[in-house]
Amino acid sequence: MNFVEIIARKRDGLELSPAEIRTFVQGASNGHVGDEQLAAMLMAICIRGANQAETQVLVEAMRDSGSRWRMGEAFPDAVDKHSTGGVGDTVSLVFAPLVASCGVPVVMMAGAGLGHTQGTLDKLAAIPGFRPAARHAQATDLLATCGVCFAAQSDEIAPADKKLYLIRDLTGTVPSLPLIVASIMSKKLAVGANRLILDVKCGSGAFFKTPPAARELAEALMEVARRAGVEVRALVTDMSQPLGDRLGCASEVRAALEVLAGGGDSRLRELTLDLAVEALALAGRAPEAARAELERKLSDGGASGAYEAMVRAHGGDPDVEALPRPRASVSVTAPRAGFVSAVDAEGLGWIAVAIGAGRRRQGDEIDLAAGVKLHVRIGDLLAEGQPLLTLELGDREVDVEEMRARAAAAFAITERAPSPAPLIAARLGGPS
Amino acid sequence: MNFVEIIARKRDGLELSPAEIRTFVQGASNGHVGDEQLAAMLMAICIRGANQAETQVLVEAMRDSGSRWRMGEAFPDAVDKHSTGGVGDTVSLVFAPLVASCGVPVVMMAGAGLGHTQGTLDKLAAIPGFRPAARHAQATDLLATCGVCFAAQSDEIAPADKKLYLIRDLTGTVPSLPLIVASIMSKKLAVGANRLILDVKCGSGAFFKTPPAARELAEALMEVARRAGVEVRALVTDMSQPLGDRLGCASEVRAALEVLAGGGDSRLRELTLDLAVEALALAGRAPEAARAELERKLSDGGASGAYEAMVRAHGGDPDVEALPRPRASVSVTAPRAGFVSAVDAEGLGWIAVAIGAGRRRQGDEIDLAAGVKLHVRIGDLLAEGQPLLTLELGDREVDVEEMRARAAAAFAITERAPSPAPLIAARLGGPS
Repeated sequence: MNFVEIIARKRDGLELSPAEIRTFVQGASNGHVGDEQLAAMLMAICIRGANQAETQVLVEAMRDSGSRWRMGEAFPDAVDKHSTGGVGDTVSLVFAPLVASCGVPVVMMAGAGLGHTQGTLDKLAAIPGFRPAARHAQATDLLATCGVCFAAQSDEIAPADKKLYLIRDLTGTVPSLPLIVASIMSKKLAVGANRLILDVKCGSGAFFKTPPAARELAEALMEVARRAGVEVRALVTDMSQPLGDRLGCASEVRAALEVLAGGGDSRLRELTLDLAVEALALAGRAPEAARAELERKLSDGGASGAYEAMVRAHGGDPDVEALPRPRASVSVTAPRAGFVSAVDAEGLGWIAVAIGAGRRRQGDEIDLAAGVKLHVRIGDLLAEGQPLLTLELGDREVDVEEMRARAAAAFAITERAPSPAPLIAARLGGPS
Repeated sequence: MNFVEIIARKRDGLELSPAEIRTFVQGASNGHVGDEQLAAMLMAICIRGANQAETQVLVEAMRDSGSRWRMGEAFPDAVDKHSTGGVGDTVSLVFAPLVASCGVPVVMMAGAGLGHTQGTLDKLAAIPGFRPAARHAQATDLLATCGVCFAAQSDEIAPADKKLYLIRDLTGTVPSLPLIVASIMSKKLAVGANRLILDVKCGSGAFFKTPPAARELAEALMEVARRAGVEVRALVTDMSQPLGDRLGCASEVRAALEVLAGGGDSRLRELTLDLAVEALALAGRAPEAARAELERKLSDGGASGAYEAMVRAHGGDPDVEALPRPRASVSVTAPRAGFVSAVDAEGLGWIAVAIGAGRRRQGDEIDLAAGVKLHVRIGDLLAEGQPLLTLELGDREVDVEEMRARAAAAFAITERAPSPAPLIAARLGGPS
């Protein structure tokens, strides 16, 4: 089959056959299709879209471009959790040990961050010695040892996705529903847990700004999961402001430790509990009993203990004192009194990138000590001069005054009280 | 400016600014924009289109990617002629010496063929020793010496077009009106004649199958030309069957020599005269007097003499006996009696490619001796067994029976007489 003709069919808005889609994906992973041809096809998909049948074939072809771990065979109860990416989304670091402490194994493929959101893989790198699993045998050992496996995408898992993502990042073809679904689900299906919890963000700090758009993504992800035999539930959750009160790698590990110890940021705690209840429900637990057990694990040290076991099993040092520390801090205060009516989560994410806590481009080095600590939330009533946030500076030289100005501009302060968006916009896939 | 953001704007159907378009074109010629990014932008333009303002900037940026010959400064009467490409379109080889013999200089950038149409550059290569101009000084010398300059696209002329065309060919982004207009007009404007005659083909053997589509292309080309200060006329002409009765390099040179000597194929002669009348009209001649002069040059040896002078000035041997000859010939006959009601011009073009007279891919070698001679036209009444065409075979090994079957299948023979399309579908840009 001539690949130019396949591109031309998608260019003209026609449906691609399974064989045509497989030619594309195999060509991406074995190098038989040139980068310029992959880019043209990705742009054609980005503009023309792909239907359910095409998306399913695309996902499965990308899954099959590497090896399949089939974790659900040895660990039928194991659950995978995926977030579509948000600012201050520290959930995974709490969720994994918390759910494992209730006897449900958790396996997650952690990704590196790009742009205004940091990745779990980067946050884990702040824990000295922590090594995510790269091979199937390591993943199996980790689940058997501590009930949690954090894995990193290696050449084993969906190499076609890795190749295509690099090109998408360069060619303006990231924002495509079928390509996003294929990228997420190919890795989930390659890891192969039988159960999946999705946290689909919506709002100014998320990729999808409105609840309907986020819900469309959630439903597309769930449909692919179901057709592949995976039990799935999804929450559509608020990203109109950062989820937790911390941004940055070491800073978010500290935020997780606080929640695991029974305290911490209330929104981070609440969303993690909601997602964990869904995970336990998939494992057959009654929701109320599940919530009670989860809350108990947070208060009785069970969750913290599971965190320590998890970090040690991954080769890391669980001591909070071992985390990188900021070199200096800069406080940013409210320029006037009033209600916090909006927070530019994406803008704060880019400030974190600017001080070194994130990546502008693939391959950029991250400053693990750099971060942001928020002191206010939408709806808070401020006095003039009250602290809005603290910039935790690492080794990168930054223009402090510019950062201060950008940070202050990320908060809208008004005379009237706003109505904050609910933390959970929709629950999908539960028992009806 | 971040190139990914520029791609994203076109992906979303927004109008690009002149600066954004120039960033794209300069990035193509200086290598600062990667091939995968060029491919994504080309696909976005292919699907989303480009408006008149964007197209004008694109053309002029591509023109300015190399040097400008400004041939109209030293030769204000010089005319350029361009055909959008057809099967058996031998016009340039007749037009150039014929118009020059009437005192109007002709400058043309000849292209290499790809796919089912052969390029004038390939046909000229059949003339032993013929060297098209690659540099400005050569072009000027040729026009001064013989009144004709055939040039070949070198690194001097519109290098961005060369780069972008290579990628378009690989990525299914050839069929885009603004990209076609930009590719054609950037080279015309770089050569810089003040006058331009366009021959826009329509029909089964052309890129644009219908007169309205071809007319849209003609008008887009003319608009760009006028805005760049070029006087322009266009004919939309029939390509529902091959134009002349010969396909292939040496074979078409012979066809041109026949017309130049006052005989030859009537359709090739008629269209060349019509285009030549437009060229002389642009130079200020009255159409009737121009036609009479042109016909006289064909009958009194003036045109043949101009051909000899043109070939010698380009370093070539004008003797017809010096042209490569076919090694063998295969006759294909009518399987039954009836009227020729349709001829698959594109199919015949691909048969010519199969026997070596054209290129399947960029860089393929052409067999200059290989060709096809047609014996019938749409509307002819045939007896069973009457010759349809002769395959002139060169050095390439071909499956003669397969070629015979494909050639016979290119002719529809019916009991009722068809109504052939007129040779000229529209005349654009003349005095109203």
